Amino acid sequence: MKMSLGESLVVTLFGESHGLAVGALVEGMPPGIELNHEQLIEDMISRRPGSGLASKRKETDEVELLSGIYEGRTTGMPILMLIRNKDAKPKDYSFLPNQPRPGHVDHVIDMKTNGNADLRGGGSFSARLTAGLVAAGSICRDVLPDEWKVEAVVGAIGGIEGKEGFVAAEDARLSQDSLGSRVDLTISGLPVGFGEPWFDGLEPALANALMAIPAARAIEFGNGIDAGKMKGSDHNDSWGENMQLDDNADGALGGMASGAPLRVRITFKPPSGISLPQKTFNKNTGLIEELAIKGRHDPVIAPRARPVVEAVARLVLADLGRQGGYIDE
Amino acid sequence: MKMSLGESLVVTLFGESHGLAVGALVEGMPPGIELNHEQLIEDMISRRPGSGLASKRKETDEVELLSGIYEGRTTGMPILMLIRNKDAKPKDYSFLPNQPRPGHVDHVIDMKTNGNADLRGGGSFSARLTAGLVAAGSICRDVLPDEWKVEAVVGAIGGIEGKEGFVAAEDARLSQDSLGSRVDLTISGLPVGFGEPWFDGLEPALANALMAIPAARAIEFGNGIDAGKMKGSDHNDSWGENMQLDDNADGALGGMASGAPLRVRITFKPPSGISLPQKTFNKNTGLIEELAIKGRHDPVIAPRARPVVEAVARLVLADLGRQGGYIDE
Amino acid sequence: MKMSLGESLVVTLFGESHGLAVGALVEGMPPGIELNHEQLIEDMISRRPGSGLASKRKETDEVELLSGIYEGRTTGMPILMLIRNKDAKPKDYSFLPNQPRPGHVDHVIDMKTNGNADLRGGGSFSARLTAGLVAAGSICRDVLPDEWKVEAVVGAIGGIEGKEGFVAAEDARLSQDSLGSRVDLTISGLPVGFGEPWFDGLEPALANALMAIPAARAIEFGNGIDAGKMKGSDHNDSWGENMQLDDNADGALGGMASGAPLRVRITFKPPSGISLPQKTFNKNTGLIEELAIKGRHDPVIAPRARPVVEAVARLVLADLGRQGGYIDE
Amino acid sequence: MKMSLGESLVVTLFGESHGLAVGALVEGMPPGIELNHEQLIEDMISRRPGSGLASKRKETDEVELLSGIYEGRTTGMPILMLIRNKDAKPKDYSFLPNQPRPGHVDHVIDMKTNGNADLRGGGSFSARLTAGLVAAGSICRDVLPDEWKVEAVVGAIGGIEGKEGFVAAEDARLSQDSLGSRVDLTISGLPVGFGEPWFDGLEPALANALMAIPAARAIEFGNGIDAGKMKGSDHNDSWGENMQLDDNADGALGGMASGAPLRVRITFKPPSGISLPQKTFNKNTGLIEELAIKGRHDPVIAPRARPVVEAVARLVLADLGRQGGYIDE
Repeated sequence: MKMSLGESLVVTLFGESHGLAVGALVEGMPPGIELNHEQLIEDMISRRPGSGLASKRKETDEVELLSGIYEGRTTGMPILMLIRNKDAKPKDYSFLPNQPRPGHVDHVIDMKTNGNADLRGGGSFSARLTAGLVAAGSICRDVLPDEWKVEAVVGAIGGIEGKEGFVAAEDARLSQDSLGSRVDLTISGLPVGFGEPWFDGLEPALANALMAIPAARAIEFGNGIDAGKMKGSDHNDSWGENMQLDDNADGALGGMASGAPLRVRITFKPPSGISLPQKTFNKNTGLIEELAIKGRHDPVIAPRARPVVEAVARLVLADLGRQGGYIDE
Repeated sequence: MKMSLGESLVVTLFGESHGLAVGALVEGMPPGIELNHEQLIEDMISRRPGSGLASKRKETDEVELLSGIYEGRTTGMPILMLIRNKDAKPKDYSFLPNQPRPGHVDHVIDMKTNGNADLRGGGSFSARLTAGLVAAGSICRDVLPDEWKVEAVVGAIGGIEGKEGFVAAEDARLSQDSLGSRVDLTISGLPVGFGEPWFDGLEPALANALMAIPAARAIEFGNGIDAGKMKGSDHNDSWGENMQLDDNADGALGGMASGAPLRVRITFKPPSGISLPQKTFNKNTGLIEELAIKGRHDPVIAPRARPVVEAVARLVLADLGRQGGYIDE
Repeated sequence: MKMSLGESLVVTLFGESHGLAVGALVEGMPPGIELNHEQLIEDMISRRPGSGLASKRKETDEVELLSGIYEGRTTGMPILMLIRNKDAKPKDYSFLPNQPRPGHVDHVIDMKTNGNADLRGGGSFSARLTAGLVAAGSICRDVLPDEWKVEAVVGAIGGIEGKEGFVAAEDARLSQDSLGSRVDLTISGLPVGFGEPWFDGLEPALANALMAIPAARAIEFGNGIDAGKMKGSDHNDSWGENMQLDDNADGALGGMASGAPLRVRITFKPPSGISLPQKTFNKNTGLIEELAIKGRHDPVIAPRARPVVEAVARLVLADLGRQGGYIDE
Repeated sequence: MKMSLGESLVVTLFGESHGLAVGALVEGMPPGIELNHEQLIEDMISRRPGSGLASKRKETDEVELLSGIYEGRTTGMPILMLIRNKDAKPKDYSFLPNQPRPGHVDHVIDMKTNGNADLRGGGSFSARLTAGLVAAGSICRDVLPDEWKVEAVVGAIGGIEGKEGFVAAEDARLSQDSLGSRVDLTISGLPVGFGEPWFDGLEPALANALMAIPAARAIEFGNGIDAGKMKGSDHNDSWGENMQLDDNADGALGGMASGAPLRVRITFKPPSGISLPQKTFNKNTGLIEELAIKGRHDPVIAPRARPVVEAVARLVLADLGRQGGYIDE
């Protein structure tokens, strides 16, 4: 089982939610990139648990940079980013493996590994591993040319766009429930033709990487599912003066940047971890029983997934940029 | 630029829409698989142009098997599947590169390759290359255990489900326009735990491969974008007697099969190639001019994409199955 | 089972010695490279069977270029190079699988594939597949900067250097036997630092690719096995004026070009296919029996391996050059 | 720049000789393998500096296992093995980058990275990184079936076989010089057919991985360079009763195990780091000057490379074994 993303710039995740550490090993970073420590700290804080609409787990998420950095710059060699788990509470998971939680990966990993997995908090499948993605994405910022813009925002919570969505999330939290949500990502400023053919195309590569964020259930590009209802004469974006497209045009054609911004929407399911008691099977007793999970949960995913989406998008762009020769070694 | 899918079972596409040939090279096929020629012919016919709601291009799509087969069985060595283009009409594309078509890849590849691409009919980015995918997917049928079921149907055309959708498509064709559509894919019978972590998970791997099908604009798993509006207490699927899930449950958890069917929906935009005259930029004259495309076009994608979706899903399952040791060499 | 070489520029071999065809699919070629047909023909002739110290098999080895070329130039898309087998004589191998030849792969593939391999003439393991390597290496010539020089010569035959070695080979042929040999490869003009760390280093990458040429038994770099007998004070190459090294210095340090020519020696065993009768086991009778092989054999490998060594070296340099950003997409 | 080995079982090295740490990230390890801590400690000691014919650098080389292990067994997830540098003496390298050492990588990395590398002690190109290889190889021991035997011995020092070679090494050390050497590796008990075709064949895969060990200059299989002088009638190994080969036969045919032991010899150059003063170019002064290196050096490589060779061989077998389905996930 491998946990690697990318081909020319490769990020490999490691770690377990309630083990010693999580983190990422980054290969293929060009040499001479100055490390922006303040930005790294800021990025880590943006996805950190412990605040508002997030799990109460308290992690400082300090990133130890153990290789590939010399005198504050990348050397071009693999960069090991290690994040120690400090507020692990493995005892919260003593109901496993007998009472797998509904909507969680517990039972599935248990089967896959013949009982050898670390199930506590989802083990290596936990959203905690996105800390490594955010750390890796942060050091990619300075690899990408300034004119390539990556921006993600919370698009909707519980189907409600704007500030009202956050109110809905707070309601869900108070009722010990959770809510689905959406993150909207915009990538702009890519050179026309950026991206590779077929399976390494912009959308296929982003779809692969973004769908790997825990709880992602759908990904849309451009007009997304609405494209399924449109006529070609309405959907086609005409080339304007000097081959310009307007900002609502599709940002990718044939997997390559068209010149228009690439609009992406990622839908996340409501977090499976809720405090409401749920009926589910107990492998030990052979009965359907009530399970009340203590744990520390996020009532909604989008606010914390937002920086993860940005980090993943930057990693994909850095990799495709290296593959296509847009970013020098 | 590479056109490969998979890691343990690898399919590499090649060819151009109006060049000599298209096809696929398949590596990692186990030895001893009996080739089902009738099935291969049937699969090729199912995506072939020339019929009803499809382009009028006439191709017999005979597949020459030039390596890796001996006495009717796979040898385990790379299998070269070659499909000659017989009804290429490159002259239909004499307006290129000066008048790139709206919604097409013409201008984008031209920029990417500094004018060295074969632009005729989209070159290597044409849906014609899905012939290679269908051929490769066909020989994967007998690699997958019988109980793993892959089935795709036309889900909707122009937003209309069922037979009425086809009527809408015919209307679009008659009015020289095109319509968006959706293919619904169901994968069932996978062993619990099937799939790999993170970026090789079932959804990430399928999202990657399926989004590479030309014109795909969105992919949804399970409840898809509706999951963004749901509460956790509604969305969570409780484990029933003996850890069974009901058929509406999410088919994948943590990227691995949960035991329930995996439901996938792929939305395709309306084909960009329409016969209606369109205004667009002419690089030669520097003016916005009307462009009327002759060519031979599909008015809607789903009917012909349906077998491609199945083929791609089989290729992904064969690859993940090889990676995870579910399919022996 | 895969037959691919390279990461950024990828060559995948296919075909069988006595099947329909052999060839190569080349991915990652930059667009806009003009194809030199005369050079390609010349390169194919240089390894072709049918002449002097070579097998009497007669093959014209015409290369059909079926994709990735448009108007005489590469498009950047995968290039399919197909070489039909015209003088296959599968009947010569009717003694298989019962009487596997000494020193040949017959028995080994048979075991590996549970009897499903195409054993005739070694199937996919035959030196006939080097035709694809030479074809692929030929189109790499114009990808490499002119100042990067790749030259291979026959170093020794039967341990005898120079012209006398060829006489020894002719003697071996007349006595229905075969002889070992060596090819000496020199690569010069690489920029200092060319190559990647560790397993993608110049020597590791060349060792991998060159040892895959059928019958290779040893590979030496610089002083080779003599380095094992030397003192550091003798072996170390001092940096001269302006960091120049003399031409006898090691051409690679840490897997990267030092500025001196890289000297490589590849030793080939005597061809296993000899006409002298040999005693060996017959699986059918369960007895040790005499086996006289008709077939058409080379009495010595180096003369025909020479162009293969050059081709493989060019492929490795093109791949490492693409990886390291020395060759633009 | 990447530092990864393998495809199904992947080891990625990281770290610098005089940075904070070295180590390895191992992906693709099957779940449920019990960790043998005593064996790991023993393996690390076997290559550790600080003893007899080795550098005087003192490192305990404790391996922190930070992920992928749960309750003493592998979980199947990536295993991070971290080894802190405790006796780094970066000040020993203050002569860099101005006075690059003869035979060392200093100047070459400096050029490759535009002055951004960590040059101290060779940085990421140092033999210190083999600590990660030995750690990774150690946990592969229990993945390989018991009947697959991997054994490496010191074959020769300064061209002298047996115990006398060690005396020669001691002489070299006393005279502040160094000596070349050879390690002999034997792999036996592999199933007939083990290995993959062409570039993933046993010899090509081993050649790639073993040539990446710092200072390796040649690799020989079977009769090695002597095969270049032999006749086919002498070199061919006849199949004996029930297809058995004798122990001197070639251990691989067509890149796959033949049933006979695979004999491999790796030649190492004399260590470049010697205490004798050497004349070499000073970039700062522009003059050829005398350079006396303090540092802490090995006078000969084979004794410490021996366990590295074994570790690398185990990693290659584990990877090929996973690829070929000989080792289950």
